[in-house]
Amino acid sequence: MLERARVILKKGVHTKVVRGNPWIYDNEILKIEGDFLPGDVVDIYDVSKSFIGRGFINPNSKIRIRILTRKEEEIDKEFFRERILKAWEYRKKVVDTDSCRVVFAEADFLPGLIVDKFSDILVIQTLTLGIDRFKEVIVEVLDEIFQPKGIYERNDVSVRELEGLPQVKGFLKGNFDTKVEIVENGIKVIVDVENGQKTGYFLDQRENRASLRGLVDGAEVLDVFCYTGGFSLHALKYGASKVVAVDSSGIALEIAKENAKLNGFMDRIEFIEENAFDLLRRFHKEGRSFDVVILDPPAFAKSSKNIDGALRGYKEINLRAMKIVRDGGFLITCSCSQHITRDLFEKVIESASFDANRLLRLVEFRYQAKDHPILLSHPESLYLKCGIYQVWKKL
Amino acid sequence: MLERARVILKKGVHTKVVRGNPWIYDNEILKIEGDFLPGDVVDIYDVSKSFIGRGFINPNSKIRIRILTRKEEEIDKEFFRERILKAWEYRKKVVDTDSCRVVFAEADFLPGLIVDKFSDILVIQTLTLGIDRFKEVIVEVLDEIFQPKGIYERNDVSVRELEGLPQVKGFLKGNFDTKVEIVENGIKVIVDVENGQKTGYFLDQRENRASLRGLVDGAEVLDVFCYTGGFSLHALKYGASKVVAVDSSGIALEIAKENAKLNGFMDRIEFIEENAFDLLRRFHKEGRSFDVVILDPPAFAKSSKNIDGALRGYKEINLRAMKIVRDGGFLITCSCSQHITRDLFEKVIESASFDANRLLRLVEFRYQAKDHPILLSHPESLYLKCGIYQVWKKL
Repeated sequence: MLERARVILKKGVHTKVVRGNPWIYDNEILKIEGDFLPGDVVDIYDVSKSFIGRGFINPNSKIRIRILTRKEEEIDKEFFRERILKAWEYRKKVVDTDSCRVVFAEADFLPGLIVDKFSDILVIQTLTLGIDRFKEVIVEVLDEIFQPKGIYERNDVSVRELEGLPQVKGFLKGNFDTKVEIVENGIKVIVDVENGQKTGYFLDQRENRASLRGLVDGAEVLDVFCYTGGFSLHALKYGASKVVAVDSSGIALEIAKENAKLNGFMDRIEFIEENAFDLLRRFHKEGRSFDVVILDPPAFAKSSKNIDGALRGYKEINLRAMKIVRDGGFLITCSCSQHITRDLFEKVIESASFDANRLLRLVEFRYQAKDHPILLSHPESLYLKCGIYQVWKKL
Repeated sequence: MLERARVILKKGVHTKVVRGNPWIYDNEILKIEGDFLPGDVVDIYDVSKSFIGRGFINPNSKIRIRILTRKEEEIDKEFFRERILKAWEYRKKVVDTDSCRVVFAEADFLPGLIVDKFSDILVIQTLTLGIDRFKEVIVEVLDEIFQPKGIYERNDVSVRELEGLPQVKGFLKGNFDTKVEIVENGIKVIVDVENGQKTGYFLDQRENRASLRGLVDGAEVLDVFCYTGGFSLHALKYGASKVVAVDSSGIALEIAKENAKLNGFMDRIEFIEENAFDLLRRFHKEGRSFDVVILDPPAFAKSSKNIDGALRGYKEINLRAMKIVRDGGFLITCSCSQHITRDLFEKVIESASFDANRLLRLVEFRYQAKDHPILLSHPESLYLKCGIYQVWKKL
């Protein structure tokens, strides 16, 4: 084996690495000694040549190095086995492991690696060049630990191109029906691991969906951006008298319908294929009202450049939603934009409440599910916010 | 009835009232027309003499007026009945109502009124002069709605003196054993409504205690500031192999012991009467370690004047706790200081993790239980923070 290249950090940069930050930017590097190929493992030193850690280097990315370890240990199959086992032990403590996120990238100390478990199927993403080069080894380890019926690769994401990787998807182990049935909080859900968004299903909302319990009993519920019906199914399970489920994607609604059928909920759900902004405006004009309104939009801010536009979008839908929630009813409102911080999101909600002339009372403020843990030293790992508010007219 | 005095607000102040803020400070008042007695209901107008709301006035408090309503409605028995019923309806949706906070003061649009239900007993506090004058009516309404076995008054709190009220406690209805047995998350708990802190038991941690589930199975747990054993009992219920419960109050530990006996947990719990700071320092020196450490201290910052000292205190206990949590174990850390904001608290935790040389991963960030809702327009109603972190040595 060739000797690893040695990356010397600029003065002071080592502190953040020691404290757990997993990313080193191009402009934080003083110099590199030795040769390396994109995706190689390199050793990291501070200016006084003390060993700081070991990570993947990618000269094509502004995030030049992603830290794997702060110890002088080999990056081999055993390394990945140990890390994945650590991640799995954690899930066994905190969530129902029938279906869950097993590995959450940097937050599981495995930069760029996503592994979701849907019943007996694993879906993986290797989003960075360095981790992608270990894909085979990782698949071996996953196969040994989980002995799944199959493993599917969902590397058809544009972020891979920034890393110089092609977009691909397909079977890595086995050949199975890519519509997988899972059970979430006692509800049957069809997950389309081949064509669904991301890995097929948003496991990060599992606990937020469960928090509908109690709020929706006997209620008329509007589920906006319903996708394949996650929140709608929970509302029906927890006793909603009627759910109106809205999405602009007919394909998503078809799966939502399938899911509703599977659970025997078809008599209480109505599907509308419409743009959410248009629908909320229309319902408000028509004087429609609901006991509970759920807003679970896609990320409006895909980068830090369009935060302002995103904030306008969040304000618009929240303001309109508040106006069609009945007095004393509930608004469940989410943002999965990592660039919209908790504070920004709360400010938007408050500002919308002023314009809607409503008093809001916070029932719960929630984040992503526990199988998507948040590394304190990597604030980027916090992305999902979910506020549950009771909405009052003048009191 | 005499005509109500009319309070004219300074220019611009009406906005915050309309938006739901329940407090008007002495320096926000332009003038007062008419006579009033301390505690009277007064009408509030903006500079252009538009009606803004109605509230209690207290010339002895910097919070000169506490808003009751923004409508021109009578403040009478019916008013209180409606408000308390609203509060009760909400609890029935969000919590187990065997024992819960029924009325949470400003956040239930009833400034200064606290009502806790412990099984078939109600405990009330009337903390402001205005609400205290309606005490009899409120007790009547509570009796009609809940038909409790008894009602107890815990007005032995110093904040009443700021309002010009005496400290009192005692029976308001019935004469019953003041040690009341309640059930919380399936655990039996003795609540001492006569001599316990505040109303006898901290219901605000109910859901945070429940979130120990999964984390403590088979674990050795250290519960610091255990008071009457809330977290300890939950840890034992959820399978902890051993709990060390620490408090500086022998009286609290006696009740904790009673609670442990009641649930058949005595073989797995050890009680230590010691100052928490001393104990954490001692355990660290002695090389003691635990799978899970719980910190639920009393409010270190009783006012905005001692935030710095409080932050030092929080940092000290968290740093020491992190050092005695085993690698990959969990720290459950709380602050009930309203003056220590969420952001401040999180910064302290992060700073402690730097000094302790630990990587922290957030499992969940929680707040007070849902029967202690948070009024957006009254940020003071958010006070309890509870972070659940996984603690790692160098990785």
